[in-house]
Amino acid sequence: MNTKRIENVLNRTECDALLICDPAAIYYLINAHIYPGERFLGLLLKKDEAPKLFLNTLFPFEGRKGLEVVSYSDGDDITELLEQHIKKSDVLGIDKNLAARFLLPAIKKQIAADFTDGSLPVDQTRAIKDEEELELLRISSRINDEAMAIFKTLVYEGVKEQQIAAQMLDIYKKLGAEAYSFTPIVAFGKNAADPHHMPDDTKLQIGDAVLFDVGCVYHGYCSDMTRTFFFKQGPTDIQKKVYDLVRKANEDAEAYVKEGVRLCDIDKTARDVIEQGGYGKYFTHRLGHFIGIEDHEYGDVSAAFKDLTKAGNVFSIEPGIYDPQTLGCRIEDLVIVTKDGAEILNHYPHDIEIIG
Amino acid sequence: MNTKRIENVLNRTECDALLICDPAAIYYLINAHIYPGERFLGLLLKKDEAPKLFLNTLFPFEGRKGLEVVSYSDGDDITELLEQHIKKSDVLGIDKNLAARFLLPAIKKQIAADFTDGSLPVDQTRAIKDEEELELLRISSRINDEAMAIFKTLVYEGVKEQQIAAQMLDIYKKLGAEAYSFTPIVAFGKNAADPHHMPDDTKLQIGDAVLFDVGCVYHGYCSDMTRTFFFKQGPTDIQKKVYDLVRKANEDAEAYVKEGVRLCDIDKTARDVIEQGGYGKYFTHRLGHFIGIEDHEYGDVSAAFKDLTKAGNVFSIEPGIYDPQTLGCRIEDLVIVTKDGAEILNHYPHDIEIIG
Repeated sequence: MNTKRIENVLNRTECDALLICDPAAIYYLINAHIYPGERFLGLLLKKDEAPKLFLNTLFPFEGRKGLEVVSYSDGDDITELLEQHIKKSDVLGIDKNLAARFLLPAIKKQIAADFTDGSLPVDQTRAIKDEEELELLRISSRINDEAMAIFKTLVYEGVKEQQIAAQMLDIYKKLGAEAYSFTPIVAFGKNAADPHHMPDDTKLQIGDAVLFDVGCVYHGYCSDMTRTFFFKQGPTDIQKKVYDLVRKANEDAEAYVKEGVRLCDIDKTARDVIEQGGYGKYFTHRLGHFIGIEDHEYGDVSAAFKDLTKAGNVFSIEPGIYDPQTLGCRIEDLVIVTKDGAEILNHYPHDIEIIG
Repeated sequence: MNTKRIENVLNRTECDALLICDPAAIYYLINAHIYPGERFLGLLLKKDEAPKLFLNTLFPFEGRKGLEVVSYSDGDDITELLEQHIKKSDVLGIDKNLAARFLLPAIKKQIAADFTDGSLPVDQTRAIKDEEELELLRISSRINDEAMAIFKTLVYEGVKEQQIAAQMLDIYKKLGAEAYSFTPIVAFGKNAADPHHMPDDTKLQIGDAVLFDVGCVYHGYCSDMTRTFFFKQGPTDIQKKVYDLVRKANEDAEAYVKEGVRLCDIDKTARDVIEQGGYGKYFTHRLGHFIGIEDHEYGDVSAAFKDLTKAGNVFSIEPGIYDPQTLGCRIEDLVIVTKDGAEILNHYPHDIEIIG
């Protein structure tokens, strides 16, 4: 159990109690991986009380010093269970991911005086990584750099996206990672112009763009990087223009990062480059997302997110241009915010590279 | 789009509108696989109105005849978006899985007159499979039978659970399946006494129990079966007693299944066998779960679930005894409820089998 993190969370909330249900948040707070499927899992935090974990008896759990475990069985009424541990007068902070099937009955039965989204204190605590976390994130991205250098050697004319993707997990494991941080994206040619393309039977052809958006998990911490290569032939002039815009957007944004700037302004830095280049409408997503135990954590680098960066924030910088007529291209790195700038976690170069 | 299924859902609800968010339910109703990650996805159903799909512009979707697509972008306010399509006077049925971060603001802003769990009509419709679905479920389980016959040949002394598990997906794919229906459980020896054990580095030893709880997806439909084998040596007398109890619990329960019996009584049939055999406290979970597009769908075969079976229900019958001192053992089949009985989808035998 990480009492320091729990303390940080409780210091950030005005709720009387927080009911945390997200398995990743629970892992962060009590260092236990519990994935309850459709069953209820909850960590109840209150100031001056021991944390309580509501856990189905089906899941073996060896306990944690200072943690009270409230066991229940299939068939037990979860609302009644919670009612025994929450005061009717409490303002209850609810996990943002709590499913309606647990939340609606609790609201109808008024087991608390008010229900509010209680995830922000957890998210804000998680958004500032401690030294132990930063070191794991560095290693995870180092493995990802090494993996990228191997992935690019797997291509040959006619290979299918899926055939490349199928080899990646083994490569990560040999490099010391334990899992994917997300299903890898391998996109050839026009498929690279779909930012969420999933590897399919598309065969690689000479002149195709080859986009890898990949990441692994190392000791529970995620990496995430994208590079766009060209197969056997260099880009056309217009493709080169697109690539260079994306690269400049990435590098200008990374140079802008430091503690105390608005996240939306980092997004704007990259977006301005692409808009001024005439491709604004093809940059269809936010510039980046926070990352840590999960590939996507609370915190956006987007126009909508006006918070200031803090030292210890870790997020992606991933501008892209998705023009089906010309090129789909994304260049993504992870960065740690520092007092004076950014520590870029990915060292795989940004240069145009012809592979195969 | 499956207008018949949508009609069946709307006929089962008294809500003015249903907001369906579960990707599996949306797949069932409009035949589109959309996995929005942390972004909002919703299908709004109203009588006498075309269904509306709320979809982030990031996700490419070719549309469906008769379906209205309401696009939004990152940064848009989801509550405001919903408000434009839901009347303040509506009783709104909410997806049981809708995350609190979307539900709480909608409740606070009172975009509807009342919010209630609206998944039951969808779940009840999904619980009665149509002929097209039954045929896919039969094929999925037939593949699973064939796979089990292969999996048991993979064992040898010293092999690790993970090494067996790592080979399963390829075997399924060669047999015509597209994916796992869930992460396979491979458990040797004492690990079989943990019903949720995940394959690890445990090495197989002579005399171990070998439990496979495995399933695949065929054209979107899941299979799920468990068998417990013995490696190189037959069970001891006491292990044989445990195995025979589990087998009798399975077979008595399957013989009890037909349309119009209470699901809790099917559970009781199996549980009575194990309790009378003196192992009641080691049968720690419900007897079974419904299955279809998802491995676990709405509907339990458990003491808490008193609904009557209907022809076309498909669920698992999976009694187990988890005695760490003696044996961990589970025998699981899928069954279709029929007018007069059950069609058992798994044909792999229940006999004690020594492998390796």
